Amino acid sequence: METIRIGIVGYGNVGRGVELAVGANPDMRLEGVFTRRSPGSVTVMDASVPVMHVSEAAGKREDIDVMILAGGSATDLPVQGPEFAALFNVVDSYDTHAKIPEYFESVDRAARGASRVAVIAAGWDPGLFSMNRVIAGALLPSGACHTFWGRGVSQGHSDAIRRIKGVTGGVQYTIPLEEAMHKARVGESPGLSSKEMHLRDCYVVVEEGADRARIEREIQTMPYYFAEYETRVTFVTGEELRAKHSSMPHGGFVIGSGRTGRQGSSNQVMEFSLKLDSNPEFTACVLTAYARAAYRMHREGQEGAKTVFDVPVGHLSPKSPAELRKELL
Amino acid sequence: METIRIGIVGYGNVGRGVELAVGANPDMRLEGVFTRRSPGSVTVMDASVPVMHVSEAAGKREDIDVMILAGGSATDLPVQGPEFAALFNVVDSYDTHAKIPEYFESVDRAARGASRVAVIAAGWDPGLFSMNRVIAGALLPSGACHTFWGRGVSQGHSDAIRRIKGVTGGVQYTIPLEEAMHKARVGESPGLSSKEMHLRDCYVVVEEGADRARIEREIQTMPYYFAEYETRVTFVTGEELRAKHSSMPHGGFVIGSGRTGRQGSSNQVMEFSLKLDSNPEFTACVLTAYARAAYRMHREGQEGAKTVFDVPVGHLSPKSPAELRKELL
Repeated sequence: METIRIGIVGYGNVGRGVELAVGANPDMRLEGVFTRRSPGSVTVMDASVPVMHVSEAAGKREDIDVMILAGGSATDLPVQGPEFAALFNVVDSYDTHAKIPEYFESVDRAARGASRVAVIAAGWDPGLFSMNRVIAGALLPSGACHTFWGRGVSQGHSDAIRRIKGVTGGVQYTIPLEEAMHKARVGESPGLSSKEMHLRDCYVVVEEGADRARIEREIQTMPYYFAEYETRVTFVTGEELRAKHSSMPHGGFVIGSGRTGRQGSSNQVMEFSLKLDSNPEFTACVLTAYARAAYRMHREGQEGAKTVFDVPVGHLSPKSPAELRKELL
Repeated sequence: METIRIGIVGYGNVGRGVELAVGANPDMRLEGVFTRRSPGSVTVMDASVPVMHVSEAAGKREDIDVMILAGGSATDLPVQGPEFAALFNVVDSYDTHAKIPEYFESVDRAARGASRVAVIAAGWDPGLFSMNRVIAGALLPSGACHTFWGRGVSQGHSDAIRRIKGVTGGVQYTIPLEEAMHKARVGESPGLSSKEMHLRDCYVVVEEGADRARIEREIQTMPYYFAEYETRVTFVTGEELRAKHSSMPHGGFVIGSGRTGRQGSSNQVMEFSLKLDSNPEFTACVLTAYARAAYRMHREGQEGAKTVFDVPVGHLSPKSPAELRKELL
């Protein structure tokens, strides 16, 4: 079995998950972790893996087949994506949906110039969920497809709570509404909006003597984040927040439905769902499988930016095409 | 928008579904239906579509971009697959799992010889379910993936019931067991067997005066089909069978789960499910979307037999790659 040599850029929650995921795949070996911090300050789980400063990465072009970019979408990837795609095959989980087209273009240019493959936005949404949206739309063109998120922690909404005066801690769970999920399955109300589909459940720690009524009102009326949604606020102590709300679960549902038959008499429902105890660790699993695909596509002579829409599913597996047909088709 | 010219070989339940599915896709046009019956005896829904004998198909090579083979796997496809792949780009839903490798080889040889693309086994299982099995295995390599079928009619088991002496009609539903689905989700019992996962529910019509106890016993002890399973038998009248059990629902669940994290503390669950009022109509939708992919892969210069593992998901959609990235990623 050939060995795919992997590098990781960025060692946060996702980067740590990638280290574990690479270790779980016998056809891969972790060659190094690259960080913008002082390398001596970063301790990886496998002590035999070298930790280097990102500035040293360019010198490792011959030693790494695929670099997995584990940084954030807000500031890390817009710079690192094109920078590393000009040097390595890369994979990332860029997730700012609205800016994907421009990010794709910038990474595509860099990767083509270097004859490298760059798989962008390869997490679960964007990523696996996106694939299911495309399949549902292609198979049931007159149907509708809805994406529900949760139950899971939304980092953006949790941050928004914590910016309110008097708040010292907070976690927001996005929860899909059962009734809306039922409507999506039976094909009613094709145009469900996000606020009709989700509940926002907030656990908030406040300073002593803070005005809870004012804080609850500020959360529930915050434009864009909460105002349009059914929003529940529960005040908890700092200890409760740490004990019960410090893990990072997430998940969701992509529900496609449509009618077939001469009189549209048959309802057909496709559903893909994830229930994840750890969002970053699962994202790391997706990134690692797509690293294998990037390696293969590069070997086939492909180049440029790719998304989950461009990658044949068989490329994710360590099994050969013949094994896959025999064992899993 | 360019138009993909489609032909259908075989006009049974799936063939009729393909006619409707092609009509629902504005980038496709149905050029003809080919049958082994006397063409005059076959009435298609759209009277403007010509019905021809299969022997006329070779003369239409220039007029049809993709031929959708809607015949059965037992006797039709082993002959028609290689025969038509030597003349056209083709798509089929060949579903005899055990014989897929040899079928693939025979179609691959024919398609390569003619520089055509042949997508085989493109239904929901094999097909969409297979893709999810591969994704689950690639993302969670130390986890387990289980496929549950149902609730749905199994043609093979229904036929087996009808062969029993004294039986005049019968329908068998395969039903997934909730408890086993729960075990698959929580990651217990990785080696669940089919009999631990499914219940067999039979509705049986018998001749007047038939020995019901003997028939029930013969069903429940029938080797391979029923003996190992929990099997329920309900006797009904011929009218009841027609009224309540003549539709063709089906579906099922692919449940992948695995643990991540340093101590394996995070359970991660992926689940894909289908709930289909009409099995053949949905299979037709899958075939039709893969016809679009076959057309595109042929235009890219690809050739030979392909499966759902080889086809990038984006090729199923009428939207351009840039539209898909902007709208659905």
